[in-house]
Amino acid sequence: MQLLKDKIRNEAKIIDNRIIKVDNFLNHQLDITLFNEIGKEFKRRFAGKEITKIVTIETSGIAIASIVAQYFDNVPVVFAKKHAGLNMNQDVFEAKVYSYTKEQEYSIKISKEFLRPNDKVLIIDDFLASGSALMGLINLLSQSSVEISGAGIVIEKTFQEGRKRILEKGIQLESLAIIDSIKDGQVIFK
Amino acid sequence: MQLLKDKIRNEAKIIDNRIIKVDNFLNHQLDITLFNEIGKEFKRRFAGKEITKIVTIETSGIAIASIVAQYFDNVPVVFAKKHAGLNMNQDVFEAKVYSYTKEQEYSIKISKEFLRPNDKVLIIDDFLASGSALMGLINLLSQSSVEISGAGIVIEKTFQEGRKRILEKGIQLESLAIIDSIKDGQVIFK
Repeated sequence: MQLLKDKIRNEAKIIDNRIIKVDNFLNHQLDITLFNEIGKEFKRRFAGKEITKIVTIETSGIAIASIVAQYFDNVPVVFAKKHAGLNMNQDVFEAKVYSYTKEQEYSIKISKEFLRPNDKVLIIDDFLASGSALMGLINLLSQSSVEISGAGIVIEKTFQEGRKRILEKGIQLESLAIIDSIKDGQVIFK
Repeated sequence: MQLLKDKIRNEAKIIDNRIIKVDNFLNHQLDITLFNEIGKEFKRRFAGKEITKIVTIETSGIAIASIVAQYFDNVPVVFAKKHAGLNMNQDVFEAKVYSYTKEQEYSIKISKEFLRPNDKVLIIDDFLASGSALMGLINLLSQSSVEISGAGIVIEKTFQEGRKRILEKGIQLESLAIIDSIKDGQVIFK
């Protein structure tokens, strides 16, 4: 997706030739116009797939998933909670995820009532790198009876082997910008 | 806003005649069709106001703010972070908030680069109860040079005195459903 690649080239901050910060449009300030283009592109890539629900992970996936849902007949969005409050229903599906940016393990939870047996789920998330968050979410969904129709990722960093782990599960994986490597502070796309 | 009140009456779970859980459409599963109607309503209530940015707070405000932004010429959304990662810029505006649902104090942060001197900010959030989160956000914004054009809240619980604290600041406050009290497990709107 050219618009997204241009945004990354022009606005991402590269730290230590390793970390890509896209706070300017994806993770802190949100570019709603871009998110709408992302929604159109995911609709194109998952055309013909039946989708009854979009599932994402707190926090950065929520805004994207919500805009994307508008291109899939406004299906409900459910986000896996990382920081469940005292009032959260205890009847949940749960999985463990290791965060490399926070250097700690955490649990993600979804109330069972929001994953129905006939649901066809499209997973949406902002980043795929180690694949840890996405694999955690897939593990969580596998405890329910939903069908996973696909996974749509905004930015994938292939050099961290996340893709392989997802494809082995037989899930259609679509990433809108795939970063092959970072050299001298420059992003090189696949 | 009738549609919202109906949703609350029909789908909210009332706990101890005190806590209103709207996980079904606002805080865990997200009703994107409803959010679009919320966007239209906020546009109507803040008609004529100049808005260059929408600011909200992690987590539940993010999806609503993103959909609402579409009714304000797709202005950027910035969310105050509760759970900043290791990579977050250290050059931030910061304020303290006490959470009654998590029973602890936390910091909210926004990178200074995303609050510009000429910004006219519309604050959007899901709940107004004690007013603690909203007052924290207003304090944070007051450290920058932005102008606060208004605050749009989806559900207000007036019995917790949040409104008074905001109005004293001279900020236009619009809540789409105002809950006067809860009796015998039933919500009574103002």
